[in-house]
Amino acid sequence: MLSPSAALGTGFSRISVIGLGLIGSSLLLAIREAMPTVTLIGHDASPDVRETARRLKLADAITDTAGAAVADADLVILCVPVRAMADVAASIRDDLPPEAIISDVGSCKAEILASLTAALPHHRVIPAHPVAGTENSGPEAGFASLFTGRWCIITPPAEADPAAVARIADLWREVGALVETMDAAHHDLVLAVTSHLPHLIAYTIVGTASDLEDVTRSEVIKYSAGGFRDFTRIAASDPTMWRDVFLSNKDAVLEMLQRFSEDLSALQRAIRWNDGDALFNLFTRTRAIRRSIIEEGQDDPAPDFGRSHP
Amino acid sequence: MLSPSAALGTGFSRISVIGLGLIGSSLLLAIREAMPTVTLIGHDASPDVRETARRLKLADAITDTAGAAVADADLVILCVPVRAMADVAASIRDDLPPEAIISDVGSCKAEILASLTAALPHHRVIPAHPVAGTENSGPEAGFASLFTGRWCIITPPAEADPAAVARIADLWREVGALVETMDAAHHDLVLAVTSHLPHLIAYTIVGTASDLEDVTRSEVIKYSAGGFRDFTRIAASDPTMWRDVFLSNKDAVLEMLQRFSEDLSALQRAIRWNDGDALFNLFTRTRAIRRSIIEEGQDDPAPDFGRSHP
Repeated sequence: MLSPSAALGTGFSRISVIGLGLIGSSLLLAIREAMPTVTLIGHDASPDVRETARRLKLADAITDTAGAAVADADLVILCVPVRAMADVAASIRDDLPPEAIISDVGSCKAEILASLTAALPHHRVIPAHPVAGTENSGPEAGFASLFTGRWCIITPPAEADPAAVARIADLWREVGALVETMDAAHHDLVLAVTSHLPHLIAYTIVGTASDLEDVTRSEVIKYSAGGFRDFTRIAASDPTMWRDVFLSNKDAVLEMLQRFSEDLSALQRAIRWNDGDALFNLFTRTRAIRRSIIEEGQDDPAPDFGRSHP
Repeated sequence: MLSPSAALGTGFSRISVIGLGLIGSSLLLAIREAMPTVTLIGHDASPDVRETARRLKLADAITDTAGAAVADADLVILCVPVRAMADVAASIRDDLPPEAIISDVGSCKAEILASLTAALPHHRVIPAHPVAGTENSGPEAGFASLFTGRWCIITPPAEADPAAVARIADLWREVGALVETMDAAHHDLVLAVTSHLPHLIAYTIVGTASDLEDVTRSEVIKYSAGGFRDFTRIAASDPTMWRDVFLSNKDAVLEMLQRFSEDLSALQRAIRWNDGDALFNLFTRTRAIRRSIIEEGQDDPAPDFGRSHP
């Protein structure tokens, strides 16, 4: 059953965003555009980021402490690295209104759900994860349309207040996202393969290419259009964020990594033994997934991601 | 020393392109645009492709046999899969004018240089590799600006006629490419890391993601914007072309694959043992390469490859 206020949009009148990187700043801009009457309060632990956020007018107020940001808020969204969530939650506990809903945007959910629930046992904690981003970081990288057409996964605890879940879902729909709900453990398994493993692989190959003796760094850069450059985009993502993701979602990442390594060994063997059919069969199979991703609107149909060819 | 004709542009008056896929068709369109007075002849082994090429008016004539395409040509460029090069070379031998230069666009050069030289011992063979492409295949995928700002690597044999090398270099410059010369073995090592290994990794991870029991294919597609979708573009590349590349450049690919696997194992160990510093250090180091690639004009500076965010 929806609460009366939810019937009038999301029903939030004062939203606080803690952490003003790419996602936090994009979320503020997107809410401002979709729900102009909502009061927006922001905070970031870094004085430089706060100054930039004020200059960019990302919110109605940017506070110097997290506690000041959440006083009077009816929704607080934590947009900090996964392993910083627990400390931030503890730091706002005394200032948080009892009726406020707590959410976040972290990339792994089981650990966050546990730590936020432990830190704020008397509040409604409704974690969420918008599957969207770019390789850029910081408050200047944000833009209002980042979430348009992307999925946001909500991972409520079993005993969550359905009205609170519905309001969080409405908020994400308001900023253009598609919404799905699943349990935190399944989320972490799904994202291990669609996001965490790809990042780990990209970081690895860029590292491997940097460390060669017989191929210079300049050659790697010049001839990167052969495929390598695609990996460098992801490998330019925020180091703190991704360190935390891999440590927080360790079990699922190690499981996916093990499967990937087995599959890679099988291909390596096919190359060594000139098994062209095995290669051809895999390479044919993988084309279909690309088509589905484009058909479902999750990537640009233009060749080469729509990169400009001057 | 340049030949007199090279001083007047590339000096080619009749160019044949054998193989009318993405690269062959793009090359015809690019030469037409840059050098409108050159006569262009095309051929493809597939009747369907020939029909499409005629409909698209990719050349002045599309011939039904490779032999007919090369009669009277002063340059023949083979744009067929790497392992089809030797057979095509043998099939044109009897019709090839003695003065014609033979080139190609294959992704690995040592094997091609050897097989073309063996098949056409009395001709000037000057292999080349434009490091450019998209995930699309076939004559309808071609476009004239594909090579603009991309590198083309020429790998002449040690005893090559310098005038012939200069004319091939001029041709690629005319269609917008930057030109570099190196020996075939070094080319194969460089491209193993900037192109072949990335393709192998992309094919592998897309295969791994297709084969999970606890995560559905629909989930993989829906949440692919977390990073996975970047890999699916490369993994949609032409299966025949890439099967041949891996078998032809086996030694260099296996060497790079071994290095990659070692580096991946090291990261796996860092995750298992919670070594956040090792992860953070690598993730910081890899950002610099992305910046260099953008500074040198080898990728789009816009976030997310310039993908549209509606």
